[in-house]
Amino acid sequence: MDLKSKIRTVPHFPKQGIMFKDITTLLADKDALRYTIQKFKDYYNDKKIDVIAGPESRGFIFGAILAHELGVGFAPIRKPGKLPAEKVYEEYELEYGKDRIEMHKDAVQKGQRVLIVDDLLATGGTSRAAANLVKKLGGEVAGFAYLIELSFLKGREKLKDYDVYSLIDYEAE
Amino acid sequence: MDLKSKIRTVPHFPKQGIMFKDITTLLADKDALRYTIQKFKDYYNDKKIDVIAGPESRGFIFGAILAHELGVGFAPIRKPGKLPAEKVYEEYELEYGKDRIEMHKDAVQKGQRVLIVDDLLATGGTSRAAANLVKKLGGEVAGFAYLIELSFLKGREKLKDYDVYSLIDYEAE
Repeated sequence: MDLKSKIRTVPHFPKQGIMFKDITTLLADKDALRYTIQKFKDYYNDKKIDVIAGPESRGFIFGAILAHELGVGFAPIRKPGKLPAEKVYEEYELEYGKDRIEMHKDAVQKGQRVLIVDDLLATGGTSRAAANLVKKLGGEVAGFAYLIELSFLKGREKLKDYDVYSLIDYEAE
Repeated sequence: MDLKSKIRTVPHFPKQGIMFKDITTLLADKDALRYTIQKFKDYYNDKKIDVIAGPESRGFIFGAILAHELGVGFAPIRKPGKLPAEKVYEEYELEYGKDRIEMHKDAVQKGQRVLIVDDLLATGGTSRAAANLVKKLGGEVAGFAYLIELSFLKGREKLKDYDVYSLIDYEAE
């Protein structure tokens, strides 16, 4: 299946010059959704994943389905102020300023192999912060899975210690 | 399985006096997650669902898994400014002020039966707004599914035209 044909590009969102990759057209297509999850499952079935972690909000969609399909737990990675119990956080740089993501301290047990799943790899800033969170909790980062990779933004360079798997690549904007 | 025992109650979050129901302990438990989805699947298997809609962010988790399991598409219901294409919105009252949720115009086709899935039913404000969005798009609301219902907040009264199914009930705070 040509998954790229299921993605809608919306020009100038959220601001002038950005060609936004809209995954809702893929999510609405039950066959495309099923194919996407099957591809991930084929790749990770024998990779001994213990936990899947997914960043808020779109990372919840593919991360949760894949956790269920692989028969492992799901650990949400959240924006500040959302998680109620004891937690760790990690800051990362934005174009202007900083942002922060958080995980519960009990989300990952020491030595567990954690797969980080998100919809899209752009510059890799959030993903690297997510890997640091997993390591703070004593987990091992088993890899990164994305539906879409914007390879012209070179996010893989920030994740070069890890296995990175993506289903759709955009080599240019 | 006693699903309620998998939920962690965190006192005084996000503010004094609130007994927050934390679902991350259930999500981390692969057997509890599997059991949860199986319960939903058993209930909705023969209910002719065409689409599942889930509100940002925790509604994405159970909504996406159940969409995949039932073999239907998933339509995200989002906070303002997140959806890039043509959309409809609905406002609802908060304790102080108003909030708004949005769906893409092409998220639901006319006549489709839409199940709305969220983690928790509290006062029902967001859920009723979600039902109104689905109807604006020409869809039929097939029902509401929740992991947790806080029945002491009487959210069902706002949804009395619809089938409401929840797996865990708190009759008192």
